[in-house]
Amino acid sequence: MALIVQKYGGSSVATTEKLQHVARRVAATRRAGADMVVVVSAPGDMTDDLIARAREITDRPPARELDMLMAVGEQVSIALLSMALQALGEPAISLTGPQVRILTDSVHTKARILEIDRRRIDEELARGRIVVVAGFQGTTPDHEITTLGRGGSDLSAVALASALGAVSCEIYTDVPGVFTADPRIVPEAHKLDRLSYDEMLEMASSGAVVLQTRSVEYAKTYGVRLHVRSTWSEEPGTVVEEVTDVERVRLVTGVTHDTDVARITITNVPDIPGIAHRIFSALAERHINVDMIVQTASRGGRADISFTVTKADAPLAGETMREVGREIGAGAIEAGEGVAKVSIVGAGMASNPGVAAKMFGALAGAGVNIQMISTSEIKVSCVVPLEDIQKAVRAVHRAFNLDALG
Amino acid sequence: MALIVQKYGGSSVATTEKLQHVARRVAATRRAGADMVVVVSAPGDMTDDLIARAREITDRPPARELDMLMAVGEQVSIALLSMALQALGEPAISLTGPQVRILTDSVHTKARILEIDRRRIDEELARGRIVVVAGFQGTTPDHEITTLGRGGSDLSAVALASALGAVSCEIYTDVPGVFTADPRIVPEAHKLDRLSYDEMLEMASSGAVVLQTRSVEYAKTYGVRLHVRSTWSEEPGTVVEEVTDVERVRLVTGVTHDTDVARITITNVPDIPGIAHRIFSALAERHINVDMIVQTASRGGRADISFTVTKADAPLAGETMREVGREIGAGAIEAGEGVAKVSIVGAGMASNPGVAAKMFGALAGAGVNIQMISTSEIKVSCVVPLEDIQKAVRAVHRAFNLDALG
Repeated sequence: MALIVQKYGGSSVATTEKLQHVARRVAATRRAGADMVVVVSAPGDMTDDLIARAREITDRPPARELDMLMAVGEQVSIALLSMALQALGEPAISLTGPQVRILTDSVHTKARILEIDRRRIDEELARGRIVVVAGFQGTTPDHEITTLGRGGSDLSAVALASALGAVSCEIYTDVPGVFTADPRIVPEAHKLDRLSYDEMLEMASSGAVVLQTRSVEYAKTYGVRLHVRSTWSEEPGTVVEEVTDVERVRLVTGVTHDTDVARITITNVPDIPGIAHRIFSALAERHINVDMIVQTASRGGRADISFTVTKADAPLAGETMREVGREIGAGAIEAGEGVAKVSIVGAGMASNPGVAAKMFGALAGAGVNIQMISTSEIKVSCVVPLEDIQKAVRAVHRAFNLDALG
Repeated sequence: MALIVQKYGGSSVATTEKLQHVARRVAATRRAGADMVVVVSAPGDMTDDLIARAREITDRPPARELDMLMAVGEQVSIALLSMALQALGEPAISLTGPQVRILTDSVHTKARILEIDRRRIDEELARGRIVVVAGFQGTTPDHEITTLGRGGSDLSAVALASALGAVSCEIYTDVPGVFTADPRIVPEAHKLDRLSYDEMLEMASSGAVVLQTRSVEYAKTYGVRLHVRSTWSEEPGTVVEEVTDVERVRLVTGVTHDTDVARITITNVPDIPGIAHRIFSALAERHINVDMIVQTASRGGRADISFTVTKADAPLAGETMREVGREIGAGAIEAGEGVAKVSIVGAGMASNPGVAAKMFGALAGAGVNIQMISTSEIKVSCVVPLEDIQKAVRAVHRAFNLDALG
């Protein structure tokens, strides 16, 4: 029988009614004749609530214990969903990450999947059961509980789909798919039917929170076709897959924005070889993901280096920079919150040099000041003042005629 | 270094402040020079809240999934307590039941401990860490998560103390120890300094909720000395151990009561050999613990059999009796709630035949009607109307001069 992996996010299992809706949906797919593995996230705000409790105790919860704590949310969801499926007459069994043996490295709170042991899942599928697997969590080979980082349940689903050779990996969420921009900000935004992995990757990394970035990388590497769709509707959503047909390439696919951005600037950095390596390897050692990096031109043998990180990583990044700054004899460290990022993404951009200029023009026309710029093959990102982010997104969306997309 | 096992109940870790108090208490014992294993229960009402969520989904949650769900509460407590200890500068590590390898049979929700693997705990102790272990939970040899039944964290602590050869097993709770009666009902009740395992066993099984019955059985079998005491005070509590000095034997040690009682009566049971075996083996197969059993004298070859179970087990027990009743040709099944049990416990009772009569007299004098009677070597229990339980306890406590005990 063909195997389908479905993943349901936390808001889809936040209440008993929602959980029962998910159970009916899973049961319907099962009854249509598929083997099923269902991955679930922690209900609603449970993980955030647990983290808040940890922070009542200590500013810097040890990562290993934080994983021990955070892993419980998904365990609640799988037990309840398995009960709901059994209440509908469907044989089902819940399995934790350690029970499946989703093996990871030991970088707590941001672990990487090394290997998935398919034996237990295969056994349960062979018994005719729907297998409900806890997302977000895994285990090191020596039985330590790990978690995969924010949005890690997407990664669990993709990795399981790949390991099990699933015909389909469906990511259920509160929104109907991936849009040309956030419809809460741009009412004219349209749902995209189909996206390439690279486009999805750039959109995810630049603020479209519909899929976790690492899960898209994983899907791209292992060729897992994703279908992002709504828990609450039967409408097809957005398919993410390898896109090779040249004519379908769009100049600009969508406009994304991200308000979880903090900017850190190290001033007066000596402009000698190896300095950037010192700075960014110090951040990497602390497992801080750096997004945009901008270095000003050198003046008098000194330059400023700015980069962006998530707000959560900003205190540790600032502290790291103060240490590194002292060692290398740099000037003051400036930390700026109050900023946000607006990006355009599109596979056709690489061969069209005017695209970035058009974006800057749209922002200028809307009176939005650009603080940092970063470009890649298929993306242009600008850091702008947080208070201007809505008008920035709308102006850029309009400038690329995305309002007219059908 | 001498090893101490401490167990803290759910109310001791219900809030961040309480948890931090527990951490300071553990740290103080550690700093006084002991190796420490700390067992914790789920915070406050978390387990009950989780069960309530399961019951929103289904009247009869499957036991395996209920264990998956209920095990999370203790995991929250161990992670937070380990964080709180580390925040005080004490090296600590949390371990789940499966991580320790507390191996149990596979009777979900009421599993029995088969064996405890001490290797992981020994490794962590050798690294100088306080080991914080999740109570209540274990694992079958094939990695299924199990729980040990109500109050199972007491059993976890006793079993760990035995497996690790601890010099002391301290059970921390909200009350200062074991009393001659519930002080909320009998203000004159006194704390007992010392109790035998058998007395504690009878008191626990007849309603003194300070210790789980099975944990006392286990302590008796393996000779683990228990110290039941308050989390909130430095005062010594009640020691439970083998008592052999004959002169210390009390006629009546305490009066207990239990309101979690339901009575089930099968009427008109054919009075032929093997019938009682049929009835009670059917209940045992469904893992229903029967407490008191009373059979009336036969009239015309027929008798009535009454027994008591917990309120939670009453629906399943009633259903089982309807099945068995049909098979054996019995009469109606009567299920009575609205009852409670009052008991006296004392090691000296066995050789003093007037004790039961004195109890019945005290109840009669208080106008309390006795519905069922059951006696053992060191206990007499009476089922009485629920609304009379307080005056029953007070009358019996007074009749045995327990008010005067110091």
